[in-house]
Amino acid sequence: MVDIATRVWNHKWKIDPIVRSLIDTDFYKLLMCQSVFRNKPDTQVTFSLINRSKSIRLADQIDEGELREQLDHVRSLSLTRGESTWMRGNTFYGKRSMFSPEFMDWFEDLRLPPYHLEKHDGQYELTFEGSWPEVMLWEIPALSILMELRGRAVLGNMGRFELEILYARAMTKLWEKVEKLRPLDDLRVADFGTRRRHSFLWQDWAVQAMREGLGDNFTGTSNCLIAKNRDLAAIGTNAHELPMVYSALAKDDATLARAPYDVLSDWQDEHDGNLRIILPDTYGTQGFLDNAPDWLAGWTGIRVDSGDPATGAERAINWWKSRGEDPRDKLVIFSDGLDVDKIVALHKQFQGRTRVSFGWGTMLTNDFKGLTPGDTLAPFSLVCKAVSANGQPTVKLSDNPNKAMGPLEEIERYKRVFGVGEQERLQVVV
Amino acid sequence: MVDIATRVWNHKWKIDPIVRSLIDTDFYKLLMCQSVFRNKPDTQVTFSLINRSKSIRLADQIDEGELREQLDHVRSLSLTRGESTWMRGNTFYGKRSMFSPEFMDWFEDLRLPPYHLEKHDGQYELTFEGSWPEVMLWEIPALSILMELRGRAVLGNMGRFELEILYARAMTKLWEKVEKLRPLDDLRVADFGTRRRHSFLWQDWAVQAMREGLGDNFTGTSNCLIAKNRDLAAIGTNAHELPMVYSALAKDDATLARAPYDVLSDWQDEHDGNLRIILPDTYGTQGFLDNAPDWLAGWTGIRVDSGDPATGAERAINWWKSRGEDPRDKLVIFSDGLDVDKIVALHKQFQGRTRVSFGWGTMLTNDFKGLTPGDTLAPFSLVCKAVSANGQPTVKLSDNPNKAMGPLEEIERYKRVFGVGEQERLQVVV
Repeated sequence: MVDIATRVWNHKWKIDPIVRSLIDTDFYKLLMCQSVFRNKPDTQVTFSLINRSKSIRLADQIDEGELREQLDHVRSLSLTRGESTWMRGNTFYGKRSMFSPEFMDWFEDLRLPPYHLEKHDGQYELTFEGSWPEVMLWEIPALSILMELRGRAVLGNMGRFELEILYARAMTKLWEKVEKLRPLDDLRVADFGTRRRHSFLWQDWAVQAMREGLGDNFTGTSNCLIAKNRDLAAIGTNAHELPMVYSALAKDDATLARAPYDVLSDWQDEHDGNLRIILPDTYGTQGFLDNAPDWLAGWTGIRVDSGDPATGAERAINWWKSRGEDPRDKLVIFSDGLDVDKIVALHKQFQGRTRVSFGWGTMLTNDFKGLTPGDTLAPFSLVCKAVSANGQPTVKLSDNPNKAMGPLEEIERYKRVFGVGEQERLQVVV
Repeated sequence: MVDIATRVWNHKWKIDPIVRSLIDTDFYKLLMCQSVFRNKPDTQVTFSLINRSKSIRLADQIDEGELREQLDHVRSLSLTRGESTWMRGNTFYGKRSMFSPEFMDWFEDLRLPPYHLEKHDGQYELTFEGSWPEVMLWEIPALSILMELRGRAVLGNMGRFELEILYARAMTKLWEKVEKLRPLDDLRVADFGTRRRHSFLWQDWAVQAMREGLGDNFTGTSNCLIAKNRDLAAIGTNAHELPMVYSALAKDDATLARAPYDVLSDWQDEHDGNLRIILPDTYGTQGFLDNAPDWLAGWTGIRVDSGDPATGAERAINWWKSRGEDPRDKLVIFSDGLDVDKIVALHKQFQGRTRVSFGWGTMLTNDFKGLTPGDTLAPFSLVCKAVSANGQPTVKLSDNPNKAMGPLEEIERYKRVFGVGEQERLQVVV
């Protein structure tokens, strides 16, 4: 039987929306948004798209009209009743009422602010300006729209049958990864792949594959909509944008040196347990740990998001020991450029020495590498970052100079203030 | 939207039929049936299922009730108006009205005769008795039912997700074969996989994959229902059952020695062009060719269906040369135990020396080898053959003693009459 109603309904689509919901975003964005809403609601920020893979000329591949349609669609979204109920009523990280009534009232009325779009030299310049708690919510939808539109541009040239084979191959490839992870005892791995996913439907499938294959060793997804629909835990803590904006707001070098710790002090007022995760690499992990106040050593864990991951974890373990903490009670979360072989190796190296967890991103939700001629669907490195706050430029150093951001003279100043010396350059693929 | 009507309809199924049509069979069965209907309508035959892979205990894997349901369902089928129209109106091998009005009138009224089913030592004894033109039509449905029920028994223990991955892998595997065949110039390959297919839907998909990947180099399918539905050529000529039954009917050794040629003499009265294909191996290819009357050398081609295929083709080429024919005008059809590497090798070896065509069976429509733990879906060798005619046992020698059939003393007599000496034993996988 042909389902005529569905087919006619499909005809009617003006666009096939890429982002279908305001909670089709990472859980940590909502946590951070609430924190910013409480602590820095009036900060004016600019977020900007940055394509680290210059060889991918996005403006040549993606039609500007389609991009505007998708971005406009996101601006038309507001929180639905069911989404609000989920956020208000659900238990996150063991805590009821994670989101305050004041925050929820504000979020229910929210529409995302305008965007600014220009083409320049084969790339899109896409920026968002306004109050921090509003603008920050653009990051994930903007990235997933650009990733998926680039994919659609490639898929649009493929036949019905080629598409079927493409997805059969991608499913096979992903399932083989799941099978490699299956034998790992006590594995804890979550989906962190919203921002650079192939598509919403594909991320949703990847999450189901992980759930099916790994059972409880798959701890959840960073994507709130999928977590809600699939009855999974929403996963995530905090990101670089907090120290970056706090630091940009610092009036002098002394305040700047304190800024990353001020972020975590504010965070500690709101969260405990597994949400007390240090992200130490914004201005160099070693300096951050050496100068950290003692109360930070009592936090649950550290997220390793740049540099060589094993080195980062060893650093964390040594730091805990130097502060009299037992690393076996602590948690190391790996979340940078993971694929299955790296997960297996890190799991083996650190099992028994500390608790380990993985936030697996792009290579979980967008590994179409090698599946099309010319590798036209290979993932690439696209980010959307806070570039200024109250008129001051932001800076990121990270543990990998290839991930550094900001004006050169500011980078030099930050390196001086945070005592960052030579760093190893690592290739950034995704 | 949930399609409630379809879902309720699916609930109502008592069985999910494996064979959905009387023309869900090989084209050569219909051609031979017409020939038998004209030349030997009153011959009484017995056909019997033979599982050459004794390690597969079919009666332990397949529920007898389900098997009876499927066989009973086939007995309820009759030719539909559209199927009759296709047979009467279509052009087959360049010829209109391939099927005579007398044959079609008979076929339209046909229901398949009863079957006899017993279990013995972990195997099913499934036999069909009656007039040859009716009983012969059981072969293909009986085989495809047993193959698919065995598959369903395995699939019944798999989860929704495992099934999705299984088919993704099978599709990927098949498509990789198609991609290996794609670069071959002037390839001519047809689907011969009805009898040992994984399922009807899978055969249908395999045919579409071949069509999509190989274009006109995919010459068609032996399956009449798929040929009709997909607007493809129906492919096939004749099989061993003709010489086997003609030979069993022979009153003495002299008549026996002539019987295989009598078959082709009858065939020549009805068919020309690409339907004049010699199947020489029933009682040994070399003897058949050495003793063949000259008019047979004028036929279009030879089908190589047992023994080493390259040897068989060289034999055919030498024979044509010895009879003053140019092999480059002739056609060799390979149809035994093919998979893609063998196709590539044979195509390379004989390209330019003779016209070559491939009838690709089990490894096209049922290659699930290695896709389940314990390889529970690996194909196996099941046949359904005429075992007696008018009370006399049939015999097959073939070019591979592992494919020989019949009572021992009759095999010895046939070997003497047809002058068959030592033969090379080759493993029969499918």
